[in-house]
Amino acid sequence: MGWQKEFTLERRAKGCHLVTDEILKHIQPGLKDVQAGMLFLFIKHTSASLSVNENYDPDVRKDMDMALDHIVPEKLDWLHTDEGPDDSVSHTKASLVGSSISIPITNSRLNLGTWQGIYLTEFRRMAHTRTVVATIMS
Amino acid sequence: MGWQKEFTLERRAKGCHLVTDEILKHIQPGLKDVQAGMLFLFIKHTSASLSVNENYDPDVRKDMDMALDHIVPEKLDWLHTDEGPDDSVSHTKASLVGSSISIPITNSRLNLGTWQGIYLTEFRRMAHTRTVVATIMS
Amino acid sequence: MGWQKEFTLERRAKGCHLVTDEILKHIQPGLKDVQAGMLFLFIKHTSASLSVNENYDPDVRKDMDMALDHIVPEKLDWLHTDEGPDDSVSHTKASLVGSSISIPITNSRLNLGTWQGIYLTEFRRMAHTRTVVATIMS
Repeated sequence: MGWQKEFTLERRAKGCHLVTDEILKHIQPGLKDVQAGMLFLFIKHTSASLSVNENYDPDVRKDMDMALDHIVPEKLDWLHTDEGPDDSVSHTKASLVGSSISIPITNSRLNLGTWQGIYLTEFRRMAHTRTVVATIMS
Repeated sequence: MGWQKEFTLERRAKGCHLVTDEILKHIQPGLKDVQAGMLFLFIKHTSASLSVNENYDPDVRKDMDMALDHIVPEKLDWLHTDEGPDDSVSHTKASLVGSSISIPITNSRLNLGTWQGIYLTEFRRMAHTRTVVATIMS
Repeated sequence: MGWQKEFTLERRAKGCHLVTDEILKHIQPGLKDVQAGMLFLFIKHTSASLSVNENYDPDVRKDMDMALDHIVPEKLDWLHTDEGPDDSVSHTKASLVGSSISIPITNSRLNLGTWQGIYLTEFRRMAHTRTVVATIMS
């Protein structure tokens, strides 16, 4: 049976945030006996995403946030803007970046590349807490 | 061993379509004994995608279809247009949105957020049936 | 326990490359006893991605590379350009296309659609070898 845990990430406002350590803290118990398996992370929201990207230079995260604003501009003719001009914009970004990531586990550790980390990409201007479900299978 | 089923979604034309209930109907037998596991859905096509997004306001689906047309415009200098101006456009959209989604299962239910549902994003103007493979592991 | 193997793809420069056969060569031993399961492929880099897309016409790959350049243009005001104008551009593309793919396995074979193959999308101009972790679960 899979190991599973639901937890909440700290409140953050719009941007790309490196959350590798915060996530590791929550999933450590599930990693320990896994020689070869997978971690699946799923975010239970439609205006924030999870992604794997560069873990070293904070400028990459600023660049990605800027680029996503360019790719999905607020100036389009959006119909669904009940919660502001970043409403449908956020949903579209969520489908482009995705609601889940899958990372291999090898010898009880996430088998990430040297320069890889886990990003929370928050698309709403207002800071939110976000709920994630981690499932580990081996 | 994983539970697996291949099935066909109803014929739909270009747009984002909420298909949570249609998919649940197909996978119900696989969910019932899973306390903690994963559902993997894979679409066997290169001009339609699956995504997790907002399940309440149909305007979000119209917005996303409009935004994808803006992001991947037909007016670019495409080489591969054998089946019309939406041919390579559809393939690029498919790689941006993705051919598979992964959703946690908890106590025999999809552990989606309150506002999350499953989208079929059809990129071709002409209506198509689309084949999906569901795999459930626990 | 999952079957897992880490391997390196041949050196390739910027573009979309069909790598189905090269990947199958590496994972064949893991497929053979799987009646119903999943293959998870993860790329350990932040400037290249994996995707499932059209396997027949090489023009689709040229179109996708062209379209990604249009969607994530080098002319934006990038901060992180230490390794050239394709540096942060590549990271953003990596989050849009994604670092992993999930493909169902049925009767010891990848259950892909007739026209589907596996793409390595290399975003850096300079040719790179890329490391992939394959995990098979059933």
